[in-house]
Amino acid sequence: MSRAIHLTSTLTRTYPWLTAPLIISAPMRIMSGPALAVAVSRAGGLGFLGPNTTTQNIATDLAEVSSLLQSPHPPLPGSPTSHLPIGVGFQLWSDDLNTAITTIKQYRPCAVWLFAPANGQSDLDTWSARIRAAVPGTQIWVQIGTVSEATTLLSGREKPDAVVVQGAEAGGHGRANDGMGLMVLLPEIADVLAGSGIMVFGAGGIADGRGAAAALCLGAEGVVMGTRFLAAEEARISKGYQGEVVRVRDGAVMTTRTLLYNHLRGTFGWPQEYSPRTIVNRSWREFQAGRAFEELKRLHDEALKAGDEGWGAEGRLATYAGAAVGLIHEVKDAGTIVREVREQVWERLGGEKGRL
Amino acid sequence: MSRAIHLTSTLTRTYPWLTAPLIISAPMRIMSGPALAVAVSRAGGLGFLGPNTTTQNIATDLAEVSSLLQSPHPPLPGSPTSHLPIGVGFQLWSDDLNTAITTIKQYRPCAVWLFAPANGQSDLDTWSARIRAAVPGTQIWVQIGTVSEATTLLSGREKPDAVVVQGAEAGGHGRANDGMGLMVLLPEIADVLAGSGIMVFGAGGIADGRGAAAALCLGAEGVVMGTRFLAAEEARISKGYQGEVVRVRDGAVMTTRTLLYNHLRGTFGWPQEYSPRTIVNRSWREFQAGRAFEELKRLHDEALKAGDEGWGAEGRLATYAGAAVGLIHEVKDAGTIVREVREQVWERLGGEKGRL
Repeated sequence: MSRAIHLTSTLTRTYPWLTAPLIISAPMRIMSGPALAVAVSRAGGLGFLGPNTTTQNIATDLAEVSSLLQSPHPPLPGSPTSHLPIGVGFQLWSDDLNTAITTIKQYRPCAVWLFAPANGQSDLDTWSARIRAAVPGTQIWVQIGTVSEATTLLSGREKPDAVVVQGAEAGGHGRANDGMGLMVLLPEIADVLAGSGIMVFGAGGIADGRGAAAALCLGAEGVVMGTRFLAAEEARISKGYQGEVVRVRDGAVMTTRTLLYNHLRGTFGWPQEYSPRTIVNRSWREFQAGRAFEELKRLHDEALKAGDEGWGAEGRLATYAGAAVGLIHEVKDAGTIVREVREQVWERLGGEKGRL
Repeated sequence: MSRAIHLTSTLTRTYPWLTAPLIISAPMRIMSGPALAVAVSRAGGLGFLGPNTTTQNIATDLAEVSSLLQSPHPPLPGSPTSHLPIGVGFQLWSDDLNTAITTIKQYRPCAVWLFAPANGQSDLDTWSARIRAAVPGTQIWVQIGTVSEATTLLSGREKPDAVVVQGAEAGGHGRANDGMGLMVLLPEIADVLAGSGIMVFGAGGIADGRGAAAALCLGAEGVVMGTRFLAAEEARISKGYQGEVVRVRDGAVMTTRTLLYNHLRGTFGWPQEYSPRTIVNRSWREFQAGRAFEELKRLHDEALKAGDEGWGAEGRLATYAGAAVGLIHEVKDAGTIVREVREQVWERLGGEKGRL
């Protein structure tokens, strides 16, 4: 059995319900809701709630998580009573710290995933210190996408418990201009963080056991999937959007990083270091061909009224997704996704007598 | 022991001197010369000669390979007498087919690696048919970097024996605008080629056993390293250039794809689908800042006269290299590189009783 497949003692102590290897569902804004997060943790992974339209709404989601965890399902084996066995993601530039602290205090998620600060390390330090003071034991995860962010973290006041290294293949928001494929980024950052005691997880471009096993070989202690869980039954996502995740092939050509869909949706204010990867459709093609933004905006807003029909090859709506979209062909329940990916990792790394 | 580490029966039959897992040195133009290719094959890998300034010069390199193989070193175990245990790379848009055929007939390399046709599949078909007719048993490898090239290959007249899937992390020339990290590209192409009988190798961003093991998990039957071998003692490379490969960190930021250095060197004519990844230095920074090309060209040509001093952070010369450059810190002999990477793969995939 490969060493790469083991859970470290830190992981088993902190998240006692985990089954190796650690599979994490990314905190995708709105789409990673309570049902998805709970299903992933129930399957022995670690589910994250995504940010929401307002920070306040995360409290509503956490209340639903608590309620789902008290449902007839058996409790998670080894689950601690002190913290919820799910994590929560925050977009630092847009989320409200005080509301976040109140919420974290009330619900005690096992981990908080910090991303996209407006003021870099300084914001990360502030959030981390406040969270740690408010809820001891809640782990601090920080998402980064560059070597220099890793170097900066090491000189920060508050060292995170874990770093999520996000490769350029990832969907949704990531580094706009200085990203790199996980193949290179993960080992180079792992080298920078070696000896720091910070756990390293890999994200971006992972949609099955091949990618998951690869990330573990590259040095990750756990693997994060986002786009794969957009095609989970439990995802909080429109059918039209989900249909695109299943339909699209050739992720290199059919996805791109662009701010166009943010702007069509009226989303402004992301720090300039970030841009989202999205499936391209008619809005993008016509924008490339020179059609005026105002016209595209009008057509986008009409498409929005059409609901699920607004997505598709001829659709106009935002369809944020990673380049691994070409590896996803079927909607499945989240527990099955977690178990299948885990099986596939064991096939690759578990050895001939792998399943101990 | 993981299945991923095995050599298939096709590989052992075709290249009987190989030791698992298959480590391949890329055919880097000029820099992959006879000493490097022979050292890699002697270590149980598969060494490739790169293209040269003219197709005729490849014959000179092959003559040297033959002579090196007859040197006091013991012959490769299990090496076939019918073919040379090294491969040769051709740049189809610039190499001369008739000269190539004469050379291949005379020296019988075990594999020919075809790259960058001016006329896509049609050129690949022509070259493949001529090579197969001239030298039965010489394997045809084709380098691709997109899903659509894989689809096109399947409908071509001449199916290659192997495909090298090159991720966007790779150094030197690769896909200019439609590339993608190996993490996603390799499994998606492997799915397209499944059942075709075509072997799949992975290239781009691999510089140590972590990347090599990852590529095997992603579905490769062998892994190609280029930049790592630029820092081999046997590479045909200036010391100034090699020093940069060892010095540079943060491959995401310190390398980029640009045609600037091709043009500074007076290289024109590459098909528009391709551009090279290079370490950035003063020429690029000043070009970004708006300095006129003619001036940069003059300064470049002066730097050329300075020899090794022309490279470095303040240098001006072309320094083609992959994004994995940040993982390479030391010049080693090629045999050591091959053996160390193999060891590192075994540590990850070989299991607790791995070394059988």
